[in-house]
Amino acid sequence: MTKFILGKHSSSQFSQEMESIRNHLLRMGGLVEKQLGDALEALLNNDSAVAEKVLITEDEVDELEKRIDEECARVLALRQPAAIDLRTILAVSKCVSDLERIGDESAKIAQQSLEQEGELPMSLVGVKHIGHSVKHMLNSALDAFARFDADKAIEAAAHDDEVDTEYQAAMRSLVTLMMEDPRSITRVLNLMWVLRSLERVGDHARNICEQVVYLVKGKDVRHFSVDEMLAAVQNKRHGGEPE
Amino acid sequence: MTKFILGKHSSSQFSQEMESIRNHLLRMGGLVEKQLGDALEALLNNDSAVAEKVLITEDEVDELEKRIDEECARVLALRQPAAIDLRTILAVSKCVSDLERIGDESAKIAQQSLEQEGELPMSLVGVKHIGHSVKHMLNSALDAFARFDADKAIEAAAHDDEVDTEYQAAMRSLVTLMMEDPRSITRVLNLMWVLRSLERVGDHARNICEQVVYLVKGKDVRHFSVDEMLAAVQNKRHGGEPE
Repeated sequence: MTKFILGKHSSSQFSQEMESIRNHLLRMGGLVEKQLGDALEALLNNDSAVAEKVLITEDEVDELEKRIDEECARVLALRQPAAIDLRTILAVSKCVSDLERIGDESAKIAQQSLEQEGELPMSLVGVKHIGHSVKHMLNSALDAFARFDADKAIEAAAHDDEVDTEYQAAMRSLVTLMMEDPRSITRVLNLMWVLRSLERVGDHARNICEQVVYLVKGKDVRHFSVDEMLAAVQNKRHGGEPE
Repeated sequence: MTKFILGKHSSSQFSQEMESIRNHLLRMGGLVEKQLGDALEALLNNDSAVAEKVLITEDEVDELEKRIDEECARVLALRQPAAIDLRTILAVSKCVSDLERIGDESAKIAQQSLEQEGELPMSLVGVKHIGHSVKHMLNSALDAFARFDADKAIEAAAHDDEVDTEYQAAMRSLVTLMMEDPRSITRVLNLMWVLRSLERVGDHARNICEQVVYLVKGKDVRHFSVDEMLAAVQNKRHGGEPE
């Protein structure tokens, strides 16, 4: 593992800087994971105190985003990283944007939970289920990043298709509900926005997975299907690991 | 202008590489702008041929995204750019992600226009208006990038607040429409997704503006209000321009 982190460089100062960037990304990831979990809890339990907590955390997430990008720029300017170190910096810079947007979507969900009036419709089951799936995806994506594990990243990315299928089904059932009981329109719309946010979180988690594959394998698998991702990684393996 | 592009380096090979990255970003921007315009046209004129064109262009946009990021990684590895050149690379790498997502949202709008059945409700006026606003924002953002013009970028970013206000108003009128005529639910929902996509396009265009300010002024203005952006830029000016 250490050889990946150090790459071509051996300066201990440099490896500390790389370590710090990775740690900050994981801290930001943990914070955003918590935001997502709290936003769902706020919605499902109609708990406005938890919702407020999600909104307050936004500033911290935004600060981390800027701080990490600044660290990346500094290392690029002063250390001229190469190979896996350079890919780590580039991947981190993409990942912070995705994490920031997951935080954003979580804040939107928290906001919806604050605006929600009265009882939620029955079809909250769909939201609960998709919420659980995308939380799991995000957790696995961050875990894959922490372990430099491309296989785990692809496995996590594969769940995005399931999330999309669940999303379509949940959305259809909400449309039916709305048609059957037009008085529920406002409340159902709120849930639709929540579903849409969760579906976006799934996309961002998938983006993070793609960046993990890039940083470990040196292969840009964006816009690839899961099968294409697997083939790309296997191909690389036959040709040996990249530096 | 040339001193900005060359930065500290004088190798003509290097300046050609930087120029190529900038040109590819602007080409990608032009393509995405066209996608957005076509998607709106397809929706407003119920023109499925134009919608198909938007969907077909997606692959080209995706390829450009990957190609530009590859060029950026190569320049970072081989040229160790500094100052404005380094910031250009970092800003371009962020901008390609935003452009790709604008392309994505345009494809979603084109998809909605293909699924749309029968006449569109009257409130298409809102969509037309917001569509026009975000197209203009994107165009100004790309123009600001092409000219290294931070003031123009801030001016363009300022329109995002208007877009958000228009979005809220259009959304409210669609909810009313839905309640008054529940038979319109499916068609109105389609328009709501379109509005949501357009609002996202506004956000991404604003992100591009923020990157232009970063690359020209060396100041990270993400999550700043427009007034804070102006203050940050003026501050820098008093202290002299960054390298």
